[in-house]
Amino acid sequence: MSFKASILTLYPDMFPGTLGQALAGKALKSGAWSLDVTQIRDFATDRHRSVDDTPAGGGAGMVLRPDILAKAIDHVSSTEDRRPRLLMSPRGTPLTQAMVRDLATGPGAVIVCGRFEGVDERVIEARQLTEVSIGDYVLSGGEIAAQVLLDAVVRLLPGVMGNAASGETESFEAALLEHPHYTRPTEWEGRTIPDVLTSGNHARIDAWRRERAEALTKARRPDLWQAQARKKPTADR
Amino acid sequence: MSFKASILTLYPDMFPGTLGQALAGKALKSGAWSLDVTQIRDFATDRHRSVDDTPAGGGAGMVLRPDILAKAIDHVSSTEDRRPRLLMSPRGTPLTQAMVRDLATGPGAVIVCGRFEGVDERVIEARQLTEVSIGDYVLSGGEIAAQVLLDAVVRLLPGVMGNAASGETESFEAALLEHPHYTRPTEWEGRTIPDVLTSGNHARIDAWRRERAEALTKARRPDLWQAQARKKPTADR
Repeated sequence: MSFKASILTLYPDMFPGTLGQALAGKALKSGAWSLDVTQIRDFATDRHRSVDDTPAGGGAGMVLRPDILAKAIDHVSSTEDRRPRLLMSPRGTPLTQAMVRDLATGPGAVIVCGRFEGVDERVIEARQLTEVSIGDYVLSGGEIAAQVLLDAVVRLLPGVMGNAASGETESFEAALLEHPHYTRPTEWEGRTIPDVLTSGNHARIDAWRRERAEALTKARRPDLWQAQARKKPTADR
Repeated sequence: MSFKASILTLYPDMFPGTLGQALAGKALKSGAWSLDVTQIRDFATDRHRSVDDTPAGGGAGMVLRPDILAKAIDHVSSTEDRRPRLLMSPRGTPLTQAMVRDLATGPGAVIVCGRFEGVDERVIEARQLTEVSIGDYVLSGGEIAAQVLLDAVVRLLPGVMGNAASGETESFEAALLEHPHYTRPTEWEGRTIPDVLTSGNHARIDAWRRERAEALTKARRPDLWQAQARKKPTADR
């Protein structure tokens, strides 16, 4: 059973999008995961095929109706479906690599792409949607956010990246940003590769990389650095 | 002069992708912004058109060569180009709505989409690339991240959303998650809209929404809540 993604959207033509190419695209073709896309508007009941209405209590924007979205969800996900149901939304729990790995070990995901001002709260409750946010910025809709989430998940699926994935992921979970990288040419525009990296002394190379990663994390992401410092007394590293 | 985005990528076919449709796609067609996409591989010099090489000092993955990437950057961005040069990377400064607004008021952006293990540090320094991260998770490449950034920026460009955008953005910057939304039908699966929202009493509605937004933020995003609490003594709200 491979990872099964079901997307609910008002813009089905946005899929597979970036996910149809490169790593995720190859994995899609090889059957490492599957994707089905459902047009929410197909479940509208009036002749204008409307899916949204004005917010109760007033205010700007439009709200996705609970009845129509619920019908679309029920169409792709029965009560026996064990897949988590996600709603991409700036109100959501921030997406982390731990959440990504958790999803990658599961049967798949049903992903609702929000648009307009929001989604009626009752359908979030009644269909147990988990709101997920990819970051603290506002997008025009959830479609790109769903692609971000799926790209992160797909690269961790069995057979997609092999050993390369595991190492990289662990380094992210060490809560340190990556050290600087260098490659050929040895000299470029008068800039050289740091001597230590060409010394062949692996202990010195590891120490240098660790030191650079720590300095970068402290400077650029004090939040990650502090979170790591708090973990240190109990954690292995 | 409209906002001008120049993308540097190894997967040019991923663009415009989601940005070619809906709000961003309409804005692209109307000329509110423009997009050009450059294949980094076109600047390779050997017969295999290789763009990467093994990391100095050893380790997994491949590193994008500085000389080839620099040539691609110089091709799309002269020394007089005032646009910021961004590198989408998990090591980067986290993207925020404030950064998005800042970009939206500028002339555009040159965006390098990373792949492989990373990019040679010397080209980041020599071409003054600002590393930007859309979140704490690992993607297969920077292409989707670039689309996230551009989608967030484009919706704020003049004429793209009108007044709707400004209000929404301000609410995000108040560092509170959005209150729950409701719309028709008034009753659905035995669930009703909270009475206050149909009371017509706007002061009560505002107070209820504020209280719900605060409760949600405290529960789901203690980090945002604490940041807001720290700001309160000096800020207006």
